[in-house]
Amino acid sequence: MRLQLDRDRFVETMREQAEIGGTEGGGLHRLALSDADREIRDWFKTQLEAADLTVRVDEFGNMFGRREGTDPDAAPLLVGSHLDSQPYGGIYDGALGVVGALEFVRALEDENIETTRPVEIVNWTNEEGSRFQPAMQGSGVWAGAHDLEEEYAKTDADGETVEAELERIGYKGDHPAEPQTEYTAYLELHVEQGPYLERAGKDVGIVTGIVGFTWGEITFHGEADHSGPTPMYSRSDALVAATDVIGRIRTLPSTLGERTVGTTGSIDAKPNSINVIPEEVTFTWDVRDPDDGIVEEAFERVLAEAAAAAEREGIDWEYEERMRAPSVEFADRCVEAIESAAEALEYDGMRLFSGAGHDATHMTGICDTGMVFAVSEDGKSHNEDEYTSWEDCYAAANTLANAAFDLAEPDAIE
Amino acid sequence: MRLQLDRDRFVETMREQAEIGGTEGGGLHRLALSDADREIRDWFKTQLEAADLTVRVDEFGNMFGRREGTDPDAAPLLVGSHLDSQPYGGIYDGALGVVGALEFVRALEDENIETTRPVEIVNWTNEEGSRFQPAMQGSGVWAGAHDLEEEYAKTDADGETVEAELERIGYKGDHPAEPQTEYTAYLELHVEQGPYLERAGKDVGIVTGIVGFTWGEITFHGEADHSGPTPMYSRSDALVAATDVIGRIRTLPSTLGERTVGTTGSIDAKPNSINVIPEEVTFTWDVRDPDDGIVEEAFERVLAEAAAAAEREGIDWEYEERMRAPSVEFADRCVEAIESAAEALEYDGMRLFSGAGHDATHMTGICDTGMVFAVSEDGKSHNEDEYTSWEDCYAAANTLANAAFDLAEPDAIE
Repeated sequence: MRLQLDRDRFVETMREQAEIGGTEGGGLHRLALSDADREIRDWFKTQLEAADLTVRVDEFGNMFGRREGTDPDAAPLLVGSHLDSQPYGGIYDGALGVVGALEFVRALEDENIETTRPVEIVNWTNEEGSRFQPAMQGSGVWAGAHDLEEEYAKTDADGETVEAELERIGYKGDHPAEPQTEYTAYLELHVEQGPYLERAGKDVGIVTGIVGFTWGEITFHGEADHSGPTPMYSRSDALVAATDVIGRIRTLPSTLGERTVGTTGSIDAKPNSINVIPEEVTFTWDVRDPDDGIVEEAFERVLAEAAAAAEREGIDWEYEERMRAPSVEFADRCVEAIESAAEALEYDGMRLFSGAGHDATHMTGICDTGMVFAVSEDGKSHNEDEYTSWEDCYAAANTLANAAFDLAEPDAIE
Repeated sequence: MRLQLDRDRFVETMREQAEIGGTEGGGLHRLALSDADREIRDWFKTQLEAADLTVRVDEFGNMFGRREGTDPDAAPLLVGSHLDSQPYGGIYDGALGVVGALEFVRALEDENIETTRPVEIVNWTNEEGSRFQPAMQGSGVWAGAHDLEEEYAKTDADGETVEAELERIGYKGDHPAEPQTEYTAYLELHVEQGPYLERAGKDVGIVTGIVGFTWGEITFHGEADHSGPTPMYSRSDALVAATDVIGRIRTLPSTLGERTVGTTGSIDAKPNSINVIPEEVTFTWDVRDPDDGIVEEAFERVLAEAAAAAEREGIDWEYEERMRAPSVEFADRCVEAIESAAEALEYDGMRLFSGAGHDATHMTGICDTGMVFAVSEDGKSHNEDEYTSWEDCYAAANTLANAAFDLAEPDAIE
């Protein structure tokens, strides 16, 4: 049989969550472990309880709702995403994946369907990495990619720690932040955040893997002299060196791969005064590619450009690689379950690689994993203009639900 | 006769002032109208009173100490500079000019010398422009270049107004912020802030004028997309456009004049997140040259570069020219008085143009004006490493005092 989600309730639930931390610009300001995050967590807990799920919160704030299966020994299926947002993010992003998971179990309730396997749905703590780094922090701790105590100690710009903020908002739970059982699979629905599905005119994305990436920051140490009387030839300008490298990060992808992207998202200059030559400039790199060899080559080239710029300017520099994520490939049985679900629902699906990291990245270390993408209009994301039509949201959520329904039965695909 | 300043007292006074707002790095943190500025003003007032000068504070906080001359109708001579500092500035900068002026009148007292003309010494409010813009604000108001009420309303980064801060520190005086009489001349001693004197092996600088300059800021409006899934070809990256222009501002001077300098001192990106393509980037330009025609050409070229970068990136942009100062030439009689004083004291002087703006810029609209420069080691300024040896400080202050002594007599030079 096929599941059909209740479209009105699904849209209504999406609208409800968008009101918590909603911005005037129609987006979301729902930073991890903020008051708005507490509010959305309270709301989510209410929804889980209303759906008769058993709620548990782990010691890193990851929230689970469990629906029992008919086989008490069967490994459960896990489905979810995240409810936190960028500083001015869109209302879809990860929230669509959490609402999609919720609607999946609601649909099972509607039809009085019992699955063989238990089903758990999850809201991961701090996927965005905007307030606390790294991104995908909660799923990373849970999957054993990060150390709990190290992540507790991470601070935001005001010096508040993750642990203190978890306690403050009341979401430092009692359950261990690690799997307490084997899982059969993890499925996640998320908006694409890129333009590939829309440009190909597709209804839904069947994600086959996630690009690898390197994140880091470079600091140049120049000399803060007066911008007027200091001759051009005797300057040590940290900003000039930085802009050289930022320009190279922009053009680097054109010499590497078709899917390579390179970005500088953040830059800070000191003393940042109109008439003082910049003394210290720190900026970031973010380079991604499906091929880990290309990521490594890009990393080395960024450092070579920084070394060359520092030598031209006669200044010191340093760097820190903040994160290196290898590319991941999703399990065939998950990809096929999603593809089959889309076909059965007569949605025009397309296989594609994800350019963004997701909580699913960490889940590949735990169990078979797969992802569904919803179409993103113009590929906009991480800003208030992010948009996916309700039709596209619904298509993706229905695909998720039916793939999950299959995977909740043992050997469903065989 | 020649004046000879008391070297020990001069050095001691310089050291005293450096303790107020002194930083661990050996510099000064004495922002205009801060608590440290109140403290240095209180100290300066005490020095003026101890030297039997008549103190007056005008409604913009400019502080004057007056010593009467033998001719009650003679136009007074004005000598001074400023006591405020950059966020992390050096201990010499303008303070040397105020202490030099103070030592000049102290030397007259020591020798019981009466001058024909009255002598006034001055500490101008907010020369640096670090906390409140524009720079040279107090002298600009006093000379009629700026409107009093407009400048009162200027705010710092916390939204505090100049007027409220003047009142808070108790230095909004009763006297009109404008000349109440004609002045015969204005002299100012300042550190060079450039390397020309040191590299030429000179003892003291005889300043013939000040470069003209244009200050402004450019803002690019791009689109904030996710740095991972957004293909390179569909980006509208405000930071890439900005770095293009900043690189051009660096190379622009090499196509214009020998003394042309171009700097970007400040840059701010939004949302400034490692994995979001920068949506909005604002950065400054500062271009200077002794020739106003070159300044105008540079201004037009900066805008042309910005327009070209915006077109390449397919984004909107805007600019604001914050300040345009024409170059100024100092009065021959002041330049000659300084040159004669240096010669008589057997200092090796050099004529040079100032690359930095000074309060003297505004004084040229009021009366004949001249400046003395002290050697700056390595040309460092506007940072804590600024350094002028006591020997060089003393040479410059002695030159100032003797030039001032000449100008305090009518027709001294003829």
